[in-house]
Amino acid sequence: MADLLVHLEPPYKVHISSSALEQMIVPHAVIVVIADEAVALLHAARVTALLEAAGSRVVLLPVPSGERCKTMGVMAEVLSKIAAAGLTRDSAIVALGGGATSDLAGYVAASYLRGVAFYVLPTTLLAMVDASVGGKTGVNLPEGKNLVGAFHQPSAVWADLSTLETLPSRTFKEGAAEAFKHGLLTDGALCDAILEPGFGAGSAKLEAVVAAAVQVKIDLVQRDPFEAGERAYLNFGHTLAHALEAVTLHALPHGEAVGYGLHFAALIGKTLGYSDLTTLTRAFLEYQRPAGLPNLEWRDLLAFMGRDKKADAGGLRFVTLQALGAPKLERVSGAVLEEAWKLFEDEFLR
Amino acid sequence: MADLLVHLEPPYKVHISSSALEQMIVPHAVIVVIADEAVALLHAARVTALLEAAGSRVVLLPVPSGERCKTMGVMAEVLSKIAAAGLTRDSAIVALGGGATSDLAGYVAASYLRGVAFYVLPTTLLAMVDASVGGKTGVNLPEGKNLVGAFHQPSAVWADLSTLETLPSRTFKEGAAEAFKHGLLTDGALCDAILEPGFGAGSAKLEAVVAAAVQVKIDLVQRDPFEAGERAYLNFGHTLAHALEAVTLHALPHGEAVGYGLHFAALIGKTLGYSDLTTLTRAFLEYQRPAGLPNLEWRDLLAFMGRDKKADAGGLRFVTLQALGAPKLERVSGAVLEEAWKLFEDEFLR
Repeated sequence: MADLLVHLEPPYKVHISSSALEQMIVPHAVIVVIADEAVALLHAARVTALLEAAGSRVVLLPVPSGERCKTMGVMAEVLSKIAAAGLTRDSAIVALGGGATSDLAGYVAASYLRGVAFYVLPTTLLAMVDASVGGKTGVNLPEGKNLVGAFHQPSAVWADLSTLETLPSRTFKEGAAEAFKHGLLTDGALCDAILEPGFGAGSAKLEAVVAAAVQVKIDLVQRDPFEAGERAYLNFGHTLAHALEAVTLHALPHGEAVGYGLHFAALIGKTLGYSDLTTLTRAFLEYQRPAGLPNLEWRDLLAFMGRDKKADAGGLRFVTLQALGAPKLERVSGAVLEEAWKLFEDEFLR
Repeated sequence: MADLLVHLEPPYKVHISSSALEQMIVPHAVIVVIADEAVALLHAARVTALLEAAGSRVVLLPVPSGERCKTMGVMAEVLSKIAAAGLTRDSAIVALGGGATSDLAGYVAASYLRGVAFYVLPTTLLAMVDASVGGKTGVNLPEGKNLVGAFHQPSAVWADLSTLETLPSRTFKEGAAEAFKHGLLTDGALCDAILEPGFGAGSAKLEAVVAAAVQVKIDLVQRDPFEAGERAYLNFGHTLAHALEAVTLHALPHGEAVGYGLHFAALIGKTLGYSDLTTLTRAFLEYQRPAGLPNLEWRDLLAFMGRDKKADAGGLRFVTLQALGAPKLERVSGAVLEEAWKLFEDEFLR
């Protein structure tokens, strides 16, 4: 069992083990479990029984599976159901599912009565290494992804690795993209571990890999809780990823968009004359095998990237890597972006 | 001109004068003005011209007048319009209107990209003395008032007293209820000033009264920014007020519900054997002359009070006054509440 401490105000812990659900402590009289409806079928009975055995009243609210729950409409419905259930300030909201579920549930927890306690039970690798730490919560708008939300730290995260064994391999590999990104942002050891044959749900090294990937995120979040500066490094690969998700109307899953985005970001670095990391990011895409891309026009993507949260009134900023572990947030010229895009097109769109 | 400093992190100022709009500074390249549609007719051209003269691009977004803007539906629409306008993190949102408008606009500002700068131009007395200070923002749910929101402090408040001269006297007196409450929470001097003949929009003492009323709120908010304790004193009179608004489907305006609520809270204090402040609260109702109440059943009101944010898993808590300036948050028994309600019924419902 790995217990990682997040030194924020108030501090909280990320518990990682293959029996984290059995160990979880959610000390509230009334608990609303907001669960991905597909995950609820697998795990809600167990979670509810465990919480009830500890003396809590549990209200289970299934929400549409995956990204489809991240709308203002679902947000309004869930809030109304919680209000109708008479939830009070000392109650808690528990997210059970992937990153989309915890993004919604966290925003609900931040907003209901201007903030109630929030716990995360991530059931995907992506949620474990990314969404469940750092307090970024929110929903999408028709105009773009994650445009609305709040910073709301969980009181605790209980990451039960056994839940990953019920995941489709494709979904597991979505999370691997974020863990791989954390490897690129540090010394690359995580990248090697992920690319090693046999890595996957149930593998012996999984707990260590998840703990190391989460620790990278914790380190950056602690240094910059409100994304005023270097926390933006976590967006490495995400500017293109968000645009790809938007133009495919989210048909391309987030973790696969990130897989492509990491490679595109590496191509930008290569174009700028930085260390060539494209061999590594290409190897990841070969491991991940994301869905193929539709025919895309650069100018359409650019329109979506302009709304990315890293944009400001002056133009487009990207996270680049000058070398492994050496990220930088910089303004990248349109010419460089187009050149990198041409390299990307040659590999994936011709 | 009164410039009141709010010592929060970051600190900000509340500027109160009869020409505050001419003095306002909103240093952002792009500004979205979220304006009550009725107020927009009176003041939006002036505000837009002043902001544009200072070099900003201004996007005006009128929203339904008064409390009707405080829905999750309007919130979603406004967020989409802001995203479509391409607003970035360094832009600002300005609220122009009453407390409902700034509640919505503040929640939009807190939520868009997880938080952008927020300025308040209150055009009602209620917004000046209450809603524009303290950072409580949010919208209503069909299940109850202010059940959703965020704490989001403004960067500055510019309260232009000349805008109050365009208010109906009934609306002015809504704000007087909150200022009167601030008098009850301190030494009563504000109560006397409000009950003095001739007090009103355009009166010589208005700036001093508004500044004193705002200062009471600032003092409490500074001591307790997130309403963990004594800030709840500001809810004096509001438990019944929120229930009255809910059961009348907001036909009874907030400030008139507060007028009744102050008197009911004073009746609770009287029932508990505290200083009898009912002469003062009755005098305020005579000054305010709120709309008559429909036939109400205590158990219906109680159901709505159970969802008040001051409720917790243990039961109903009320703010009481043991004497002028001596508030207390305490659990009040059902028997005392019913007895106070019978006294209230005898005055207003028989």
